[in-house]
Amino acid sequence: MTRIAICAPGKRLEPERAEAVSKIAASRDDVELHFHPQCFANDGHFAGSDAMRFAAFLDCANDPGFDAVWFAMGGYGSNRIAPDAIAGMNAAAKKKRYLGYSDTGFLLGALYRHGFGHPAHGPLVGDIRREGGEAAIMRALDWLAGKHDGLEPSLRNHPTVAFNLMTLAMMQGSELMPDLTGHVVMVEEVAEHLYAVDRLFFHVTQNLPEVAGLRLGAISEVPENDRSFGAEPEQIVRFWCERSGIPYLGRAQIGHDANNRIVPFGLADTAHGA
Amino acid sequence: MTRIAICAPGKRLEPERAEAVSKIAASRDDVELHFHPQCFANDGHFAGSDAMRFAAFLDCANDPGFDAVWFAMGGYGSNRIAPDAIAGMNAAAKKKRYLGYSDTGFLLGALYRHGFGHPAHGPLVGDIRREGGEAAIMRALDWLAGKHDGLEPSLRNHPTVAFNLMTLAMMQGSELMPDLTGHVVMVEEVAEHLYAVDRLFFHVTQNLPEVAGLRLGAISEVPENDRSFGAEPEQIVRFWCERSGIPYLGRAQIGHDANNRIVPFGLADTAHGA
Repeated sequence: MTRIAICAPGKRLEPERAEAVSKIAASRDDVELHFHPQCFANDGHFAGSDAMRFAAFLDCANDPGFDAVWFAMGGYGSNRIAPDAIAGMNAAAKKKRYLGYSDTGFLLGALYRHGFGHPAHGPLVGDIRREGGEAAIMRALDWLAGKHDGLEPSLRNHPTVAFNLMTLAMMQGSELMPDLTGHVVMVEEVAEHLYAVDRLFFHVTQNLPEVAGLRLGAISEVPENDRSFGAEPEQIVRFWCERSGIPYLGRAQIGHDANNRIVPFGLADTAHGA
Repeated sequence: MTRIAICAPGKRLEPERAEAVSKIAASRDDVELHFHPQCFANDGHFAGSDAMRFAAFLDCANDPGFDAVWFAMGGYGSNRIAPDAIAGMNAAAKKKRYLGYSDTGFLLGALYRHGFGHPAHGPLVGDIRREGGEAAIMRALDWLAGKHDGLEPSLRNHPTVAFNLMTLAMMQGSELMPDLTGHVVMVEEVAEHLYAVDRLFFHVTQNLPEVAGLRLGAISEVPENDRSFGAEPEQIVRFWCERSGIPYLGRAQIGHDANNRIVPFGLADTAHGA
């Protein structure tokens, strides 16, 4: 039985989503979910104050009674608690699996920077609301329970990471940023204009070290603009990869949708053995 | 007579705005405007292709018949042409005044990095469309003609720069970024959610060298969100300044409005003497 602790480093989780995911977990005999009450707190933009979200993360991470930590929602705010969260992690916290994406990439990146635990990019609890959300939740539970299914299909013997494009861009140069030298870097984006996506790829490619290459996940829910950008997402990433000498490796099955596959940070085989 | 060349490194200029600004210039005896035809070109998001915008910039910058270069519009795209633009500048180009803000901050920053010309943050040609736009245009023309009026009122004997917050964030770590050690850094933003402003200040404060301090310009046209952020712009910048040990110096009269005052990069007195 894998005991999974759930907290919300950014946005609040709607209680009905927790109930729906609890029902799915109850249908399995390999996982047990523990929702930290902080998941449902409310403080302006966030699921509780920085102090409350930070404390809830450590309640989940540091308790040896939990085997894994699952993030409830993205939103925004995990960067505000990540430095203290990292500094407060104990020995038990440094062995666990951590799963999330979108804004929680700040925490995943910081964990990876410090070699703490086994961070992976994959579905959040709140993804139950999406079309096909149940499959995404089952995929997340499989990985949290130690199974090897549901991995992003292009994963090979290269160390790999995956991030939301904006999250990666904002993390670059910060105290949270891991060293991605030699890595395959997968990125996805949601609800950004294509000109903003272009600008983000400028920033990201200018700030990456020598990486093995970039892969492009879904670029979804692009808002209508007053004029069309004039290039599709894949043309944008090819343009900036060519300018910066970064190999473009093709698409990746990550994104803000139910098809979001699991990307364990580092070598996928190593993560399997965790 | 100051001969001012105008090009559009990002977004296209509407011809009626050029006409309105030409009328204002015609009412003065100290300036002569030369609109490059590229200002009115159209290619997807941009005022012409990268090649066309780059060539137009150099037409304006390198021609010894022009005394100053004024940017027509912001939008997005000056980062795509800035490296080639800088590399192509001749001796005449390196003596001129360059005026703009918003997306053209990428070019202003790159000019400042290389010590080329006298870049300043201030009104664009397209600001004629704003309420009070005529005053903004007169202020820009005054500075381009070598007058000392219209400067941001807090300017003292500290080297200073001013940028759109997103532009500065995207420029950090790139080949365009100037060294801001010891500078007063003024930032403004438009049409971004407050959570995005918070995230940008995280990135910017984490990536600045030891600066003299930050000043906050206008944070305007903040879109409605599904929940209020819980902090006002000045609280946000104070929070991140305190976290990063950067002195917060108060407000600045810059922004996406007609009150946008002139900030010559470097020491204002030096710029006066240009």
